[in-house]
Parts: sequence; C-alpha cells; structure tokens
Amino acid sequence: MSQQTYKAQVYVTLRPSVLDPAGTAVASGLQQLGYTGVEDVRIGKYIQLTLTTDSEEKAREQVHQMCDQLLANPVIEDYSFDLEQLATIVGG
Amino acid sequence: MSQQTYKAQVYVTLRPSVLDPAGTAVASGLQQLGYTGVEDVRIGKYIQLTLTTDSEEKAREQVHQMCDQLLANPVIEDYSFDLEQLATIVGG
Repeated sequence: MSQQTYKAQVYVTLRPSVLDPAGTAVASGLQQLGYTGVEDVRIGKYIQLTLTTDSEEKAREQVHQMCDQLLANPVIEDYSFDLEQLATIVGG
Repeated sequence: MSQQTYKAQVYVTLRPSVLDPAGTAVASGLQQLGYTGVEDVRIGKYIQLTLTTDSEEKAREQVHQMCDQLLANPVIEDYSFDLEQLATIVGG
C-alpha cells in the first residue's frame, strides 16, 4: 500500500483576548527604532514538520490531533495550518 | 497625502544548518504520543503586525529593515513575510 509524505506548516497564535507582553515589548522596541507606523504586534509559533501517512485526510486529522495535544495550548492559543504533499512512497 | 495600513505576517526560522533542540524535543514528544510518521520538526516565530505608511514599497522596505534589526537574528535565522493592504487613510 502506498504512503504519502506531507509538509505541514502550523501557525500557533495567542487568542485575541489574551495579553501578549512579548508583542507589546517588540512593538515599543520597533517604535523606538523609528518605525512609528507599527501597531498590534502579536508573536506566535511557526512550526514546520513532515508527516508520512496513508492519505491527505489522515494527515489533516493527525495535524489537528497533534495541535490539540501538544503544539498549541487550547486554553490560550488558536492554530491553523497548511498541508502540502511532498512525495509518494510506493509499496512497502 | 493618503496613507495605507498593511498587515505583515513574518515567518522567522532557524537556518537549516542550525540545530533545533526545541524541534527535536517536540518531534520525540509527538512520536511518544504515537505519531510515528512525524519527522523534521522545526520551530520558529510567527509575527503579525500592522504598519501604516505611504506605499506598499515603503511597507516592504520597512518590514525588511525591522527583520534585519530586531525580529530575526541574521546569524542563525532566516525570515520571509507576506504583506496585505488593510485600509487607506485619506488626507491628514
């Protein structure tokens, strides 16, 4: 049975209602550097991984589960992701 | 003179040649959770910000400068970004 390898790009962000002290610090740092037009800086995680599984549907399901279990904190974070097929492994 | 507001989404990643202990730890955590098909986990920063300036070209230039000066460490990190126009502020 063939398997596919996918590349997932996961974007984990703090929920809008959650304060972002790191983002606030970066915003004021940028403004001090002279970038006065900068506002609303929010800092999150950008996670890249490869995943080998039977189908795109299964890959999507596993990425959701991995986000719910480990990659994102459901209490204070939201996540979204892109999935891209890299290769097909035939047989095995 | 009118000004535009842009939303920038910045992706900061460790250079491929740089070891990623956090990514390695997450990868083994996911494998212990049963996601045996997972490999090559790389963890980076996902930074969202809004920027008000005269033109898209200027916005692009400023995001490059902000990345070079503060958002990314040029020695060990690479960056890329998307830029999206949000609104136009007329007059002022």
